[in-house]
This record gives sequence, structure tokens and C-alpha cells, in this order.
Amino acid sequence: MTTTEVAPAAMLPKTVNGVSVDDLFKIVDAIKATPSIAKFNFRIDNQWHDAAKNQSTVDTYFGAGQKQSRPKPFVLEADEPPVLLGTDSAANPVEHLLHALAACLTTSMVYHAAARGIRIEEVESSLEGDIDLQGFLKLDKNVRNGFQGIRVNFKIKADVPDEHLWEVCQLGPGHSPVFDSLTNGVPVSVSAERL
Amino acid sequence: MTTTEVAPAAMLPKTVNGVSVDDLFKIVDAIKATPSIAKFNFRIDNQWHDAAKNQSTVDTYFGAGQKQSRPKPFVLEADEPPVLLGTDSAANPVEHLLHALAACLTTSMVYHAAARGIRIEEVESSLEGDIDLQGFLKLDKNVRNGFQGIRVNFKIKADVPDEHLWEVCQLGPGHSPVFDSLTNGVPVSVSAERL
Repeated sequence: MTTTEVAPAAMLPKTVNGVSVDDLFKIVDAIKATPSIAKFNFRIDNQWHDAAKNQSTVDTYFGAGQKQSRPKPFVLEADEPPVLLGTDSAANPVEHLLHALAACLTTSMVYHAAARGIRIEEVESSLEGDIDLQGFLKLDKNVRNGFQGIRVNFKIKADVPDEHLWEVCQLGPGHSPVFDSLTNGVPVSVSAERL
Repeated sequence: MTTTEVAPAAMLPKTVNGVSVDDLFKIVDAIKATPSIAKFNFRIDNQWHDAAKNQSTVDTYFGAGQKQSRPKPFVLEADEPPVLLGTDSAANPVEHLLHALAACLTTSMVYHAAARGIRIEEVESSLEGDIDLQGFLKLDKNVRNGFQGIRVNFKIKADVPDEHLWEVCQLGPGHSPVFDSLTNGVPVSVSAERL
């Protein structure tokens, strides 16, 4: 078996990397039987406060065939640093994007490693991305508004030989919803009404 | 003047929408004089805890020609709900992505409205996106891993006539770094080493 093959469930311990492998394979079997339960819809509500300050509330989502909610809503803040005319009360939007990417790559790697019986002891990652404000400020039409490129470096401690470390790492980009969304793009529709 | 034209700085009050318009135009002038100071580099460090739990630390960035740091680092958490084998201790990665998009669209709209002298009183937005887990679980090769589509609805209270409300809203997608990154895609390079 290579590290990229999924192990038969019966061969695996019940929990790997903190992930219940039994439950993971139950989800897979349930979706195979009823593919429509794989359809999830995630949502947030955002409210502007002042200048660069705004906050999102995260609570309900639709998944596993029904509306789901959290014990209590999560609140996510955003701001900009003073050099970008904010008050530095929270991470800025593009830093939140990097967090979304890091979190999704890591969780995707850890879950898919668990499905293969690969124990991961530690994962750290550093992400950085370049933005040229000439895009946002429309000072140079050849400069894009967004990230010009993002670099991700993983440090992984796992019970695999050196030659399989890259295969384990690739389980992240190979499955991550945020990585796919960000590298391949997503259609985003925007509408507006008067408040 | 239409709502999409930038007003001469001398015609504007000093602060609009909480944004110092004086400082905004000083930034524009400084970048016109020295374009290299427009180059920013944002970064985060992420650490995995267990299963779907991980956290990012946000502190330093490079911008305005030098390394910058925050008074104290921001910590951003991530987890998954129980139906996705997590413990629901924080918003999940794709919800963080929606927060990044909402925050960036809102701030971009508010800043560029300020540059045009358009007062905005309130902004709310609701974002939702669809994901089919058959992609993440590799159960159907025709289903992508990421968001299939995202819908953003803004509610805006501003001192503009109805026919200009959509123009004001469009200042968000027209300038937002996260919107550009997500709709047009970003090259992401991934490397790994042993910890």
C-alpha cells in the first residue's frame, strides 16, 4: 500500500490524528447511499462598524440533510493597521484569507492522513502573500487588486519515511476546499438593496 | 460628477465613513512618488492542535517600505462542527473564507466611497456558498473540492439616490483584494519539510 491509498476501515485504529476514522467511513458510506446529503451550504452575516472595522457572525449552516446551528454564534472581527487607515483592532481581510487557507490545508491533510492510517504528530505552516496597493488604488491598471501569489511552507512531524513526507503534505492541496476555491477561482454574485 | 469619480481632495471633509480622506490622499500621493512603497507582504503562522482544531497567529507584515508589527498578535481559531468530525469550538475554514470576503468587500466599498465623498451610514451583508462533500471525499470526480458558487447580498444605507446604490455597492467588488483573489484565482505554491 502506498501512502496515497485509503486503508480498509477494519485495518485502522478507531481514532487517528484525533479524527474518528469509524465516523469518517460512516460518512463516506452514508454519502455513497444518499449523495444528496453531501450538499452543504455555509453562511455568515457581516456588519460594518466604522472605517475598516466590521464583524461577521457565524452560526447556522445546511448540511447532512438539514439546517444545523452552533451552541452559540462565533464572532469574527476585521480591521486594518494604522498605515492602512485602520485602528489595528483585529486581523485584516487578507490575513483572514491566509488563515482560512492554512486551516483548510491542515485539516484536509490531517483527515485524509487519518483515512490512510498515517499518524501525524505535529503540523505547523507559514503562509505569506504579496499585494501591490497600486491595484486597490487603481494607480496602475497592470497591477491586480488581489494577491499576486501565496507561498505555503509546511513543517510536518509524522511516522512516514522522508520519501513519503511530500505525499502526506499533498493530501492538503489535493483535497482542501479553500485551496481549490482560491487557486481555481469561484463565481461570486453580488446584489444590493437599500437598508 | 458621477459617483464613480474621485473628488478633488480639497472639496472633501477630512473624515468620511470614519476614513481620514486627508491620509488616504497622502497615501495615494506617496505611492505616486515612490511606487515601491505600495508593495505589501502579509503573513500568518498556523499550528495544528488535534483533528480539525488549529490556530493562526497574525502579527508582522511588510508594508509602506518596512517591516511592521501589531501591539500584540491576533490569534484566529478554526475547527469543524460535529457532523464534520470536529468539536465546534470555532468557525470552520470555509466560513473564515466567507468572513474574509465580506470584510474586504465592505472595507473596499467604504474606503472608495470616502474618496468620492459618499457618506455611508450602515452596511450589512449576508454571504452563502455551496460545497458538495463528494469533492473533498473524492466520491465523484466531476465535483470540485471547493465552493461551487458564493452569493453576496448587501444592504446599504447611504446618502445617494436609488439609481446610484448599485454603483456604491460595486466599489466593493471593483477594488477588493479578496474578491479579486477569489474570483480570478491566485497561484499558491506549497512546500514541506520535516519538523
